[in-house]
Amino acid sequence: MSSKLKIAIIGSTGYGGVELIRLLASHPLAEVTSVVSSSSAGSPIAEGYPHLTEICTDLLDDVDPMLIKSKADVVFIATPSGIAAKLTPSLLEAGLKVIDISGDHRLKSPQAYETWYKKTPAEQSYLDRAVYGLAEVYGEAVRDQALISNPGCYPTATLLGLIPAVKAGYIDPASIIIDAKSGVSGAGRGASLGTHYSELNENLKAYKLNQHQHIPEIEQVLSEEAGFPVITTFTTHQVPMTRGIMSTMYASVKDGRSTEEFVALYRSFYEGRSFVRVREPGIWPATKEVWGSNYCDIGFAVDERTGRVTIVSVIDNLVKGAAGQAIQNLNLMMGWEETLGLQFVPVYP
Amino acid sequence: MSSKLKIAIIGSTGYGGVELIRLLASHPLAEVTSVVSSSSAGSPIAEGYPHLTEICTDLLDDVDPMLIKSKADVVFIATPSGIAAKLTPSLLEAGLKVIDISGDHRLKSPQAYETWYKKTPAEQSYLDRAVYGLAEVYGEAVRDQALISNPGCYPTATLLGLIPAVKAGYIDPASIIIDAKSGVSGAGRGASLGTHYSELNENLKAYKLNQHQHIPEIEQVLSEEAGFPVITTFTTHQVPMTRGIMSTMYASVKDGRSTEEFVALYRSFYEGRSFVRVREPGIWPATKEVWGSNYCDIGFAVDERTGRVTIVSVIDNLVKGAAGQAIQNLNLMMGWEETLGLQFVPVYP
Amino acid sequence: MSSKLKIAIIGSTGYGGVELIRLLASHPLAEVTSVVSSSSAGSPIAEGYPHLTEICTDLLDDVDPMLIKSKADVVFIATPSGIAAKLTPSLLEAGLKVIDISGDHRLKSPQAYETWYKKTPAEQSYLDRAVYGLAEVYGEAVRDQALISNPGCYPTATLLGLIPAVKAGYIDPASIIIDAKSGVSGAGRGASLGTHYSELNENLKAYKLNQHQHIPEIEQVLSEEAGFPVITTFTTHQVPMTRGIMSTMYASVKDGRSTEEFVALYRSFYEGRSFVRVREPGIWPATKEVWGSNYCDIGFAVDERTGRVTIVSVIDNLVKGAAGQAIQNLNLMMGWEETLGLQFVPVYP
Amino acid sequence: MSSKLKIAIIGSTGYGGVELIRLLASHPLAEVTSVVSSSSAGSPIAEGYPHLTEICTDLLDDVDPMLIKSKADVVFIATPSGIAAKLTPSLLEAGLKVIDISGDHRLKSPQAYETWYKKTPAEQSYLDRAVYGLAEVYGEAVRDQALISNPGCYPTATLLGLIPAVKAGYIDPASIIIDAKSGVSGAGRGASLGTHYSELNENLKAYKLNQHQHIPEIEQVLSEEAGFPVITTFTTHQVPMTRGIMSTMYASVKDGRSTEEFVALYRSFYEGRSFVRVREPGIWPATKEVWGSNYCDIGFAVDERTGRVTIVSVIDNLVKGAAGQAIQNLNLMMGWEETLGLQFVPVYP
Repeated sequence: MSSKLKIAIIGSTGYGGVELIRLLASHPLAEVTSVVSSSSAGSPIAEGYPHLTEICTDLLDDVDPMLIKSKADVVFIATPSGIAAKLTPSLLEAGLKVIDISGDHRLKSPQAYETWYKKTPAEQSYLDRAVYGLAEVYGEAVRDQALISNPGCYPTATLLGLIPAVKAGYIDPASIIIDAKSGVSGAGRGASLGTHYSELNENLKAYKLNQHQHIPEIEQVLSEEAGFPVITTFTTHQVPMTRGIMSTMYASVKDGRSTEEFVALYRSFYEGRSFVRVREPGIWPATKEVWGSNYCDIGFAVDERTGRVTIVSVIDNLVKGAAGQAIQNLNLMMGWEETLGLQFVPVYP
Repeated sequence: MSSKLKIAIIGSTGYGGVELIRLLASHPLAEVTSVVSSSSAGSPIAEGYPHLTEICTDLLDDVDPMLIKSKADVVFIATPSGIAAKLTPSLLEAGLKVIDISGDHRLKSPQAYETWYKKTPAEQSYLDRAVYGLAEVYGEAVRDQALISNPGCYPTATLLGLIPAVKAGYIDPASIIIDAKSGVSGAGRGASLGTHYSELNENLKAYKLNQHQHIPEIEQVLSEEAGFPVITTFTTHQVPMTRGIMSTMYASVKDGRSTEEFVALYRSFYEGRSFVRVREPGIWPATKEVWGSNYCDIGFAVDERTGRVTIVSVIDNLVKGAAGQAIQNLNLMMGWEETLGLQFVPVYP
Repeated sequence: MSSKLKIAIIGSTGYGGVELIRLLASHPLAEVTSVVSSSSAGSPIAEGYPHLTEICTDLLDDVDPMLIKSKADVVFIATPSGIAAKLTPSLLEAGLKVIDISGDHRLKSPQAYETWYKKTPAEQSYLDRAVYGLAEVYGEAVRDQALISNPGCYPTATLLGLIPAVKAGYIDPASIIIDAKSGVSGAGRGASLGTHYSELNENLKAYKLNQHQHIPEIEQVLSEEAGFPVITTFTTHQVPMTRGIMSTMYASVKDGRSTEEFVALYRSFYEGRSFVRVREPGIWPATKEVWGSNYCDIGFAVDERTGRVTIVSVIDNLVKGAAGQAIQNLNLMMGWEETLGLQFVPVYP
Repeated sequence: MSSKLKIAIIGSTGYGGVELIRLLASHPLAEVTSVVSSSSAGSPIAEGYPHLTEICTDLLDDVDPMLIKSKADVVFIATPSGIAAKLTPSLLEAGLKVIDISGDHRLKSPQAYETWYKKTPAEQSYLDRAVYGLAEVYGEAVRDQALISNPGCYPTATLLGLIPAVKAGYIDPASIIIDAKSGVSGAGRGASLGTHYSELNENLKAYKLNQHQHIPEIEQVLSEEAGFPVITTFTTHQVPMTRGIMSTMYASVKDGRSTEEFVALYRSFYEGRSFVRVREPGIWPATKEVWGSNYCDIGFAVDERTGRVTIVSVIDNLVKGAAGQAIQNLNLMMGWEETLGLQFVPVYP
């Protein structure tokens, strides 16, 4: 019998869920023992995902906290938003540890959640208790916790690209403008006109301007880091590709800091953290350079003419922006090396 | 014998050149009578472009002003930059009218051209003489001119999206940040690692940060419109699609102008100009909605929280951003209806 | 008041319907006067198709034969299969001419329709009356008819590629194997997992092996041309692109015919028909070379080693495979030049 | 000091080479100790492949057998064809084991090589000595050998799909027709019009009809398995995607074998071989279901109407079709478990 940590995944039939299955398949200390789905319980997961044929032969379990507890130690929630808020209390009570990828425990204010997500928020006590698992910044706080809130995909790319500069006072937080772009898998597997191939292929769209639910998440963190309320402009675009997020961020530079100083600051800030790669001055990352991996690559261009810095940050939205960072949080929670089971080379080309 | 205006195209084997051939094929008052190419003179154009089989059976002509004059009245130059500057004097002298799509006559300052293009500039007298053909704004000035400089693809999308607001004082020009994205055809037909399918597919790249040669073109026009020197941040990204440009533009709003006021201003500014379509508040355009057509679609989102407006402007880079606007300029130059031969419905999906 | 022929389109909100709108917008003798949709009657078509903003401002009409007759002379039916069979009798009775793009009137046997389409067939009398509009082959028969059945997309590419060789006895009909590939737009606009971007991008699928409803259509025509029952193997694949069909066809060559003889035969067969372009020996067409146009390009490779010919035929599935050929049939029906309003240059790249 | 087997890669800067680096990075018993490139020796490999930043910091070595021998035990050759033939004698003489991915040692006849590759062949003695490493079929023969020839990408998908049926007499070998389709990465990293994004995107091309160098490789193996000379029709198509090969194969069925019998035969044939997955009757594989992995998935459809079977076989051309199978051969050569370091879950979506 295996001595590995037993993992359940709620929402296994979404893209975040199957990515957890893919990544955990090679984890040395953890293994998936229960795949859970409210919609397809009883059927084999490979039926809807033929790429898992002969790899994951499990039948989908029902969403039953006691059943899950009987099969697992830790549960990842990879459902759409609005579900984890309801499930978490009983899961915790059953003695499970919870890593919530869904967004329900990210905002500390239930009012803000209601405003931006238009759904019923989790109770304040759970929001208070949830640790925000932006691994390279708040990783220490995750250890031994029972409820971890995994950051959103856009916030991960954006915050890893902004926090060192905000913290060090290299940029003016009030001037920050974020132009973000994402592949289509971020929209999930649900079929709609908005995810239809013929509508998206050879097409570039802006969407949810000033209304995206990741805005308050980004502002909450930046405000904390800046020490005063930060309000930002954040725009999202859908790019005709499956995976990948790029945040292009603009801010006014303070004290005439140069590109080289930004590079040095970020290298120092992320020293010892394998998954953030700070690029040489004059080199900007592309999404394909982190494809399928847990890396976040960041590049800089300070423009003396305008006094602004442009920061480019890229991740794979399903890995560093979801399943990968969630496993990184599992590692940190368990006191393991954070890179365990995550040292994939990006798939190129 | 046809009484149509006779057109020569220098640089026929580039993407801008073949797009001119496509569009002019259905022009009621003009026709292509000479396709010119320095590299492949003597061979049929359809050899390199099989889609033109049985449509354009012309052999490619050499770059010879007198030969061209014997066959044509107006010449479009659709070469890479650095060539039109050399050719234009002899073409004009031969009595031809010139519409330069290449960029060599856009900047009024030869020093600026040298700095940004890193090539030998045209002589000042030709730069002075060239009329900048941003059709919906400077169309009047084009009439009866002999040398027209066709705007760049990024500047077309960007300037049509910014000029009305700058002119009317709705935004602070010093605050403008432009995040632009383009399909790959903008890079031309030259084969390189930078245009290689496997490198670009499922990939999003930022490139030429603060170094793009369209920056001085945009600033030259905005400065003129603002009445003082405007310096902007302009970033370009390569999107995995063939056609399409989107400029997402950010600026601080003055006097608390609302989205509705922006929409009203732009509708009034572009009244009677068929090719600019201003979208309803809350609706933002996608590049596919102008694909293959000469439209420029513009949408707005004012955010009261930040006091900023986001302006989204899209074009087909090969049509409105090159060949289409060049034909629009031909129409204006000849005193014809500007829409002549250009009323294509976008190809969707 | 316009003296153009008045056209109604039933199924305007599908891809075939909007393609008809695009193409008819530049037809010199016909114009769309009624866009009909059972699902969205009363709302403007541009709401669901923003690329039509300011171009087609019509509200969608209800499916009412008398209303349609009051506005139009000819009606195109571009609905999914199963609807035209029901509507056609009352449309004809109202005095309208009908061009059915939907497939309901292609098979002469109602039993075959039921077997392959799994829907209720049209009455035998209407099936008998419907003229199969494969324009380059049966164009003569279309003239002055009231009910035309427009060929399917796969059959159009396939039959134009096979008929001359079958008719002339250059190949053995019993040996024909057809490997067909299509872009995603052929699946229509309905949202499903099967049309989801993330599922189709960077993916190639075989589907409906030996079960596709275009098999009996192809066999019906080939049997007629061969003079005996022809049974074929026909396989369909979904390719990650929006438009385009390629049929790669294999057959045993009779009498040692060479590639050159095939080329000569097809050139002679299609002489005077602008929309079929037969390629030189050694040159095979690509789907992009006909993109957005009404062309069908065909190439050949006879292999002496195997005694087989490979025939490659490409079309744009929404133009020559649907809306374009339907307009070609309109032209033929009216006794007009068949190329009227259809002489688009393919959009490249 | 590591006790892992030391690996050198000649041709590290091609797509096959970097895929070897990616896959070997997680191999438990082997590690890359020398990356070799004739063109870029001395520079870091991550310069041309930024996705390897901080992952592979090696400088590229020169192609020097003694230098390579001093750093490695086994060498993979992942160059274009024509180079391995020249290098192999000195590499073997230096005491290295060689796994040739390039194609130079696949054909047993130097004349055939010259005819199809149009290059100078390897000496007959090396062709005789080279073991053809189609792992699931000839894996036993690979053990302890010093020169292994890795199968081509198309032949791998094709032969795994045909050999069991040919061997068992389920199909008539003379009737085989192979319609193959590949993503663009198979064409390598060289920049040309044939790999240009704008030319390939939204495009499907047939190429090299009856001339592809994989034809004699497929026929050599099928002839051996059939016991008499087999000549086949093999057609290749370029599909707008980066990775993936599908072979759709047609043959006349003998003795009225059913789809179920084919499934049973193949399951039995590949029993115990993890990387071949035989699909249920009625289910056909898609390329994305093996993306990034070493799997070959196969599906069947027997058509009683035509008496033919359609066999669909898919692989990732860079993994099972190149680097992955090469590592599988390394495992077999060393007497290790063949799945070592290769148990990647396909990346989906």
